[in-house]
Amino acid sequence: MLKFNPLVADLPAPPIPQIGAWARAYDGAQGPLLDMSQAAPGFAPPAALLTALGQAAASPKAAGYGPIAGELALRSVYAAEICAIYGADIGAQNIQITAGCNQAFVACALALLAPGETMLMTNPYYFNHQSTLAMLGLQVDLVPSDAAYGFLPDLEALEQAIRPGVRALALVSPNNPTGAIYPPDLLLAIFHLCRRKRIWLILDETYRDFLPEGHGAPHLLLRQPGWQNHLIGLYSFSKSCCIPGHRLGAITAGVHALAQIEKVMDNLQICAPRAAQIALAAVLPDLKPWQEENRREIARRSVAMRQALDALEDWEIVSIGAYFAYVRHPYPDIASSFVAEKLGRIGGVLTVAGDVFGAVQEAYLRFAFANAPVSAIETLEDRLSRFSLPGI
Amino acid sequence: MLKFNPLVADLPAPPIPQIGAWARAYDGAQGPLLDMSQAAPGFAPPAALLTALGQAAASPKAAGYGPIAGELALRSVYAAEICAIYGADIGAQNIQITAGCNQAFVACALALLAPGETMLMTNPYYFNHQSTLAMLGLQVDLVPSDAAYGFLPDLEALEQAIRPGVRALALVSPNNPTGAIYPPDLLLAIFHLCRRKRIWLILDETYRDFLPEGHGAPHLLLRQPGWQNHLIGLYSFSKSCCIPGHRLGAITAGVHALAQIEKVMDNLQICAPRAAQIALAAVLPDLKPWQEENRREIARRSVAMRQALDALEDWEIVSIGAYFAYVRHPYPDIASSFVAEKLGRIGGVLTVAGDVFGAVQEAYLRFAFANAPVSAIETLEDRLSRFSLPGI
Ligand SMILES: Cc1ncc(COP(=O)(O)O)c(C=O)c1O
Ligand SMILES: Cc1ncc(COP(=O)(O)O)c(C=O)c1O
Repeated sequence: MLKFNPLVADLPAPPIPQIGAWARAYDGAQGPLLDMSQAAPGFAPPAALLTALGQAAASPKAAGYGPIAGELALRSVYAAEICAIYGADIGAQNIQITAGCNQAFVACALALLAPGETMLMTNPYYFNHQSTLAMLGLQVDLVPSDAAYGFLPDLEALEQAIRPGVRALALVSPNNPTGAIYPPDLLLAIFHLCRRKRIWLILDETYRDFLPEGHGAPHLLLRQPGWQNHLIGLYSFSKSCCIPGHRLGAITAGVHALAQIEKVMDNLQICAPRAAQIALAAVLPDLKPWQEENRREIARRSVAMRQALDALEDWEIVSIGAYFAYVRHPYPDIASSFVAEKLGRIGGVLTVAGDVFGAVQEAYLRFAFANAPVSAIETLEDRLSRFSLPGI
Repeated sequence: MLKFNPLVADLPAPPIPQIGAWARAYDGAQGPLLDMSQAAPGFAPPAALLTALGQAAASPKAAGYGPIAGELALRSVYAAEICAIYGADIGAQNIQITAGCNQAFVACALALLAPGETMLMTNPYYFNHQSTLAMLGLQVDLVPSDAAYGFLPDLEALEQAIRPGVRALALVSPNNPTGAIYPPDLLLAIFHLCRRKRIWLILDETYRDFLPEGHGAPHLLLRQPGWQNHLIGLYSFSKSCCIPGHRLGAITAGVHALAQIEKVMDNLQICAPRAAQIALAAVLPDLKPWQEENRREIARRSVAMRQALDALEDWEIVSIGAYFAYVRHPYPDIASSFVAEKLGRIGGVLTVAGDVFGAVQEAYLRFAFANAPVSAIETLEDRLSRFSLPGI
């Protein structure tokens, strides 16, 4: 057998399909399977979007190659959305459409970092960020953002971590896996730190449409003069429009950065799928009420999640925010990967082990509560209280 | 301004959008614009596929995340197609669906080659193969497959080029840009060479559905015992189903190779777009008559291309095959990039300069004759005979 690239061979198998195996092994004894693992919207996309998707996909026009940067119509309406949300003044020239936010991250990593250079991230991190960088032969340095830091990155720790060779800091807010929402002030201070240290700030805001009522703009970074030279924003339409299967995401950046990212995108896949871009461009501005109701529903699920776990003595929510709760399980001496597997296979509750998001995360499980209806979350108290690890 | 990854910064801008600028500059004086540049099917996908695409895209099911390897239904029908075409005995477990064939190549390059290792290719090459490897920090060694070699790679030259550090040989047959169809015997000999030298053979067969009448199986490699450990096949649905905008391709490989490729795919974009997969799985077996008519039509275009150019004294087809003709332009001392630009801007005929496909290709232009109807190709004789470089 010929050898493979050791950087890829050494990666563990992708975590989500493994969780599928636990689901198949669950015998139903504890009630219906409760899938709070992959962050996958628990309901269908809005009807207007489905209709538009169907129409666009059936049209010969959408069948041809499109522009590498994405459909101008989608870049324009998305740029307008960015202007409205952040009080920013940007245009279509600041947007690259990607086939989802994972691809957006790959494209940025390749555009910014030369082999051997370092990306700074938090611990815990979003697992695909880490595995992408490892696969590309890029170095990763981690700054803790765990319980001791209130699940936020500490400014001083960040400053110390920005050593020579560090070319970019990648953050996720609202955070995956902790759900933590980084305050606008903190993000601004981090932006200034990055600027002073002359490194890029990559901000993945896949969950920004699920901020709590009245939060206001997620941050003010796009209003800072010269942001184009220091900031790259990543976004996913997967969660906020419930269309992960259509693979759409976006990068917000300055034109010089996008010129480099465009070269990467051409190599990666020429252009993002067109039909979904055309459909989304037509209806995105009209989806606001649906998205707002979606946001409220997920907020209700958050309340239900808190209630269910508060009623339990030995399970503790250590962090909860948009989409995710980060939960301490009752087995301090046992790795979360083992607990998650048993909870899935025996308890019929699918979560992602903290271990997947970094070292020293073995005390935690990530619950994607946004996936499950309130009625299902309400059964969690009972389900978890009845669960115990076999032989313990 | 912060620096970018020099491996990306040093890449030229993607070639196809530049050609778009020539098209916009053309004033129409010589007749309608004749676009024979990007290999983009010149007609709509079959009606049954458009209908299926519309239905799948409108369904909530297609909106969710799918399996990383692709929809089982599509992998199964595509595996059956491979079995029929190549007399092979493979199954869905040998197929990974990708978002087009560029992505398939990226995934293979990452799965097989560690940073600094070498991919062997031909000169000329498909430009995105070269730019992808450069972007990833992988080395490229080239073996000539030009006029002196009948536009085929020479077995001895290949053998000499397989030095330590070379991990894979990437070939394209039918070839882009030359159109050359590698004979099954040559491919078999190359396969045995790769096996003896213990390197991977990556074979991009994006144009395999456009082989001439009665050609038979493109090759016998999938019938060789143990092919799984040496061969990886790449394919694109873009050309043969006329759906580049939907972004679908496929990798045929052994299960061990696919396990590594799947990790890469998870990082790159989780899964290929689902709706198009579901649609294609439903109709692919029924598209055969349409594809056969498509193939015949492109063969007619090939004849028209040959006739048009044969009538010209100073333009010469040096190679023609499925989809492309590789043509010597009348200006031996002038770089093809200059000739292609002027031919586009002034003559209204869009082609891709040989320079884009490698050094020492400055004598040639690539014509994607498959893009244009026979009636348009018939005007080429007149168009080219009237064209002359300004000031020459
Ligand atoms: C933080 C974060 N970034 C990116 C992604 C990728 O999303 P997609 O590729 O579906 O847009 C996810 C998905 O879970 C995520 O949680
Ligand atoms: C040889 C070859 N490989 C791969 C591709 C990429 O095709 P796609 O990504 O649309 O499947 C092309 C497109 O022109 C090609 O010519």
